[in-house]
Amino acid sequence: MKEAIEQLSTRHLLGIKDLNANDIQLIFETAQTFKDVLNRPIKKVPSLRDITIANIFFENSTRTRLSFELAEKRLSADTINFAASSSSVSKGETLIDTVNNILAMKVDMVVLRHPYPGAGVFLKNHIGAQIINAGDGAHEHPTQALLDAFSIIERLGEIKGKKIAIIGDILHSRVALSNILCLKKLGAEVMVCGPTTLIPKYIKSLGVKVEHNLLNALNWCDVANMLRIQLERQDISYFPSLREYSMLYGLNKQILDSLKKEIIIMHPGPINRGVEITSDVADSKHSIILDQVENGVAVRMAVLYLLAAQRG
Amino acid sequence: MKEAIEQLSTRHLLGIKDLNANDIQLIFETAQTFKDVLNRPIKKVPSLRDITIANIFFENSTRTRLSFELAEKRLSADTINFAASSSSVSKGETLIDTVNNILAMKVDMVVLRHPYPGAGVFLKNHIGAQIINAGDGAHEHPTQALLDAFSIIERLGEIKGKKIAIIGDILHSRVALSNILCLKKLGAEVMVCGPTTLIPKYIKSLGVKVEHNLLNALNWCDVANMLRIQLERQDISYFPSLREYSMLYGLNKQILDSLKKEIIIMHPGPINRGVEITSDVADSKHSIILDQVENGVAVRMAVLYLLAAQRG
Amino acid sequence: MKEAIEQLSTRHLLGIKDLNANDIQLIFETAQTFKDVLNRPIKKVPSLRDITIANIFFENSTRTRLSFELAEKRLSADTINFAASSSSVSKGETLIDTVNNILAMKVDMVVLRHPYPGAGVFLKNHIGAQIINAGDGAHEHPTQALLDAFSIIERLGEIKGKKIAIIGDILHSRVALSNILCLKKLGAEVMVCGPTTLIPKYIKSLGVKVEHNLLNALNWCDVANMLRIQLERQDISYFPSLREYSMLYGLNKQILDSLKKEIIIMHPGPINRGVEITSDVADSKHSIILDQVENGVAVRMAVLYLLAAQRG
Repeated sequence: MKEAIEQLSTRHLLGIKDLNANDIQLIFETAQTFKDVLNRPIKKVPSLRDITIANIFFENSTRTRLSFELAEKRLSADTINFAASSSSVSKGETLIDTVNNILAMKVDMVVLRHPYPGAGVFLKNHIGAQIINAGDGAHEHPTQALLDAFSIIERLGEIKGKKIAIIGDILHSRVALSNILCLKKLGAEVMVCGPTTLIPKYIKSLGVKVEHNLLNALNWCDVANMLRIQLERQDISYFPSLREYSMLYGLNKQILDSLKKEIIIMHPGPINRGVEITSDVADSKHSIILDQVENGVAVRMAVLYLLAAQRG
Repeated sequence: MKEAIEQLSTRHLLGIKDLNANDIQLIFETAQTFKDVLNRPIKKVPSLRDITIANIFFENSTRTRLSFELAEKRLSADTINFAASSSSVSKGETLIDTVNNILAMKVDMVVLRHPYPGAGVFLKNHIGAQIINAGDGAHEHPTQALLDAFSIIERLGEIKGKKIAIIGDILHSRVALSNILCLKKLGAEVMVCGPTTLIPKYIKSLGVKVEHNLLNALNWCDVANMLRIQLERQDISYFPSLREYSMLYGLNKQILDSLKKEIIIMHPGPINRGVEITSDVADSKHSIILDQVENGVAVRMAVLYLLAAQRG
Repeated sequence: MKEAIEQLSTRHLLGIKDLNANDIQLIFETAQTFKDVLNRPIKKVPSLRDITIANIFFENSTRTRLSFELAEKRLSADTINFAASSSSVSKGETLIDTVNNILAMKVDMVVLRHPYPGAGVFLKNHIGAQIINAGDGAHEHPTQALLDAFSIIERLGEIKGKKIAIIGDILHSRVALSNILCLKKLGAEVMVCGPTTLIPKYIKSLGVKVEHNLLNALNWCDVANMLRIQLERQDISYFPSLREYSMLYGLNKQILDSLKKEIIIMHPGPINRGVEITSDVADSKHSIILDQVENGVAVRMAVLYLLAAQRG
């Protein structure tokens, strides 16, 4: 059966929704190969030397952009970077114009971050290049979910049957949605935990448990993914204050030590130290936060490499 | 005769004024070669691998900068980018200091965009590197005019004897001036069309027709180049309002269909959809707007390649 | 003796303090080799093609960043650039998080500019990569001092016994401190000159002369290094006004001609023409300002090359 899996079932990566379990398996195997390459002295492979990739970021992003850029450079792709504030692109038409202009310069792939959910899906119908969604509003961030799942497997051996709690602001988080979709496809049990104001009503329809008490979530799970509080996305009036949030949902060493078992701590970064997690948790042996970052480059290399094989 | 044309008659490209008809012909033949390369799977050539090019932009420019950057990368040149707001360079002396500093780092060519007309000419007398003008205030933008003419020839076979109308804000447009100079050198008939407040008095001395009625211009021409309304360059008190402008000079499908013949629509981008032209015109089969963008990379590769041959 | 000197005595370059005279000698010999390379038509060497360097700039810097970037490209290193306003990193912990994230992406070297003195030293204890200090607040800027000393030797043959006056705002200048340390190690006599409000009390403990009169300093020295007035670092209330400063410490052609001997004029750039020095001085044959810029790339290539040899 496994011999048959040789390429992805999709030409674009707009969301985890595009991928089946075989696709994800193929990405992980390819990522492992690239991770081995990245630990060699010479970290570069010539695989994509005939490919031009445009990184089009309509929102600020340091980590994701750098991670994609490094992945592209280590695959020897040519890259161009386009950064625009979201204010200059208030209409879908203008988005198409901008991207079409870049594509007319003969670009093969677009890595797109955009503040509006569905921007990539919308574009797919209007342009010829392949699109990788690097975050579209509060919708999806598929490569983040892939690198998270890859990092869990690296530590726990597999995801099937494991219990993953995603803790924090579920409502505004593309990381949460993509993670739920990915983890469910791989057979995990998933729980979301946070204040009622930050958990959307539709979430139960995705087959996840909902919990409002941090300690209950931590005692249940094998892995806790502590989301970043994104101050810029909050509706002030509903939100618990940062201090309340930190008191009710912040994870410190004392809580971690009080649990009956060892759990793994994840965070998509950047960390608000002292808000979601304290430094002694972030830097502890339970934390795989820096593994997530390292794996991000390898997983993105795998996605770019496999999608490039779909061309032509 | 044609065998004799092997290199440009100029060391710099400061304006269309620097080029004779043979130079333009040589640029177009070279650009066609590069355009063929860009349509191959491997789009890179090693021609300029021993050249360092500094892209020095004292004004924001996404399209032109990306187009030059791609042209340079596909020629395998090393590039460095320098972007500065015009506010930090209010004196010519500082411009020289900035550029001299970059040149002392052993740069061979400078692609310069600057808000002041003549900035490139001024620099030429003070530095050793070759200069390509990527737009100097309302003065010239020679590579834009070259790619426009190249795109017209691609569609119509030749420029000699063709009727080109340049429509919009002629007064503040470097695109207009460079286009007029280039099209006249190639034997076209040129008309400018716009409100009296946006057409400079000296324009007739360039040998162009002046028209204030859009329909007259469209019925006369083979090609209509619809300029972008550059809101940031307007003198508010004289200007017709956007709404007035759009009513009097905006091109929509209804007007286009009412003409007695088929004309070609161009736009230097970025488009203000619904102001200069409506979407059904911009995206119609009459439009060669995206061809212009695609040809931009090939034409700039040709300019860089031919100027590099002038070194040493 | 000299055969034994084959590598630097330090893994990082955090300050001139890290280097002994042999180290500096080795850097200068290597820089001279690279300077010869930079004057060949093909300016690129493959030395660091297996190295990834992150340029992490928490402060704006055009010159230093471009100089490092060119040095890295000419050594064929892969580079990634990270620029952040200092406002987003108000805590040391966040600095570590930011850098650790970048390092987790398998970066070999970090070129770091940071507004806080000691940022590099602090980081060294927390990360694995090699660090090159590209300026830490008012503390050190070692590559600037090295390129300054290299440029003096180039003109005067040696530094030992030469008299160097550093003139201007000593208090806020990392260039001044690194220069003093470097020049003293190489056997120069050093004087600082400026208004009392801009000369720190501890400076005499470094073994330098202090002078408040510009003419006395100029008549004493072989080389005058005219520091840039950094308006953004001034405590307004103490500072002489720009006009007073310029009258008391600005160097013009008339003063230069009145001296009994020829002296060499240096400036770390960017020049405030008419404040520290007038244009007729900056552009005169006494000035080696552009040599400093040119030598900066060669010296930084040498530092990166020699540190890279320390890996593994």
